[in-house]
Amino acid sequence: MSATWDFGVSRELALVERRIREAVASDEPLLTEIAEYVIAAGGKRIRPTVTLLAFKAVGGTAVEKAVDMAAALELVHSATLIHDDINDGGTYRRGRLTAYRKYGIQEALVTGDFLFTRAFGIGGKLSHEIVEMTERACVSLAEGEIRQKRNLGNVKLTREEYLDIITRKTARPISASARAGALLGGGTLDQIEAAGTYGLNLGIAFQIVDDILDVIGDDTQLGKRPGTDIKEGTITILSINALEDGTVIDRSELIRILRKRNRPWGEVHTALRMIRDTNAVEKARADARSFGELARRALGPLPDTEARRHLRDLVDLVLSRQS
Amino acid sequence: MSATWDFGVSRELALVERRIREAVASDEPLLTEIAEYVIAAGGKRIRPTVTLLAFKAVGGTAVEKAVDMAAALELVHSATLIHDDINDGGTYRRGRLTAYRKYGIQEALVTGDFLFTRAFGIGGKLSHEIVEMTERACVSLAEGEIRQKRNLGNVKLTREEYLDIITRKTARPISASARAGALLGGGTLDQIEAAGTYGLNLGIAFQIVDDILDVIGDDTQLGKRPGTDIKEGTITILSINALEDGTVIDRSELIRILRKRNRPWGEVHTALRMIRDTNAVEKARADARSFGELARRALGPLPDTEARRHLRDLVDLVLSRQS
Repeated sequence: MSATWDFGVSRELALVERRIREAVASDEPLLTEIAEYVIAAGGKRIRPTVTLLAFKAVGGTAVEKAVDMAAALELVHSATLIHDDINDGGTYRRGRLTAYRKYGIQEALVTGDFLFTRAFGIGGKLSHEIVEMTERACVSLAEGEIRQKRNLGNVKLTREEYLDIITRKTARPISASARAGALLGGGTLDQIEAAGTYGLNLGIAFQIVDDILDVIGDDTQLGKRPGTDIKEGTITILSINALEDGTVIDRSELIRILRKRNRPWGEVHTALRMIRDTNAVEKARADARSFGELARRALGPLPDTEARRHLRDLVDLVLSRQS
Repeated sequence: MSATWDFGVSRELALVERRIREAVASDEPLLTEIAEYVIAAGGKRIRPTVTLLAFKAVGGTAVEKAVDMAAALELVHSATLIHDDINDGGTYRRGRLTAYRKYGIQEALVTGDFLFTRAFGIGGKLSHEIVEMTERACVSLAEGEIRQKRNLGNVKLTREEYLDIITRKTARPISASARAGALLGGGTLDQIEAAGTYGLNLGIAFQIVDDILDVIGDDTQLGKRPGTDIKEGTITILSINALEDGTVIDRSELIRILRKRNRPWGEVHTALRMIRDTNAVEKARADARSFGELARRALGPLPDTEARRHLRDLVDLVLSRQS
């Protein structure tokens, strides 16, 4: 991300990386190895970027606490990725074997717990508000996970239920990243609230784009097989849109595939083709743009600074990303 | 436990139970249900008892924080039990189906994360020292888990390596329970240290007794099949002792079974019989008694109070327990 875009926080992001490496040190070399394997895969570091920019946008200067917070939230994120992969049975993430495939389920599970622990160890030294924010984000994540799992293959899932799930799983944690940054930067209550609303809407847009990419992306860009959501039974806004636009496709055939357990890849590809034949992607893109616009508008109460401009740019990046 | 022994903290333990119930409330009823299922199974509440007694032993009075801490540590304990059961493939715990067998791996895994989160949410509002103590105990647990897993079927495991593993997995968390209680109770550094040493030795004794019961206990009392350690490949002090006392049994046959993957139950029972034929149980009991004695002696710097007497009684209970 930082290769093509410059959000003016590369120095701070380097500090976050260093903080993360310190945090994964352990008497047990295997724990550190697995943790570093997952963290090195990198990802977009969107959460730390949001924290650092929100911190700067409200005029924060002593960056250490924001760096700590960003590191803690990225550690939580890595922990949940490891556990998610175990849960979903995913083989690849970002073009590499998932941790549990490479190191074993047990080892990966414990490493996830270890990363949670380290994250809370850092966050717990900031402030009670930060602890509460982090706690709420993690609880929300767990609730989203359970709710998503409960709705596997549920072709009656509504748009509202879908939004509820992705809000819990993705948007609230990103919102917490933004709020925490603004809080640590000494923002006013209004500014913290604004940052939170920004993060929430950015998070929803981010997840919708993620779901779109699973339908239209290719292996090389995604670093995993497209169609993974359908393979796993996860109903996204794409399936919901496609089923609503049922005039142009064989709706009952799509329902049959989405409902099935252990769909073979051949059927996944059939479903992907059917979804692409509808207006599902187009409608989802419009949705993502709307939430992106809400994120931009939420920035109103923040002073006009370079950091605020970067927060706006981040919306564009999220909406245009191809991987 | 409190049915047969009275440690003078039943009122406080009831507050701990209430705090735990509050903590597992969630928007997602299934999370709460799984959490309550695990917590209701109860167990010995040894960690909360240790925290509360250490708190009282140093003269602590305003019990709320000790109650919070005890609840947090029990939540951590429950989280690790859930994840351990997934890792070990255990079917029963305390006479009931393990959470992942009853609710599914995914649901159980996420519930474990949820309990970790709630624990840190509570602990994170106490003090930085408490956060650090909790963090260290959890990291230690993760390291012990990994180390134990790495040594499955390792018939060359030494007594020192065994002690290192159980120190990390069991003793340090119990030590943290004691230290935290003494810290929150306003103990002096010496008293906090004494409580920590007490907890560490009590924890080692506790785990050795646990390992003995897996060799000599019966289904009804244990609430799970005896021989589980051998079935899973975990080498304990019992196997180590039996191999050292190799004159009376066919040592190479025992090694063959302990080394095997996926031992059938018939072979597990053969191994149990062989271990019982040696002096392994007797030697392990002597070890447990020694660590129990170290725990008792560690209480020296604490004033002579009812709470200190109860901490001594707790050692006897741990040494004499049958389940």
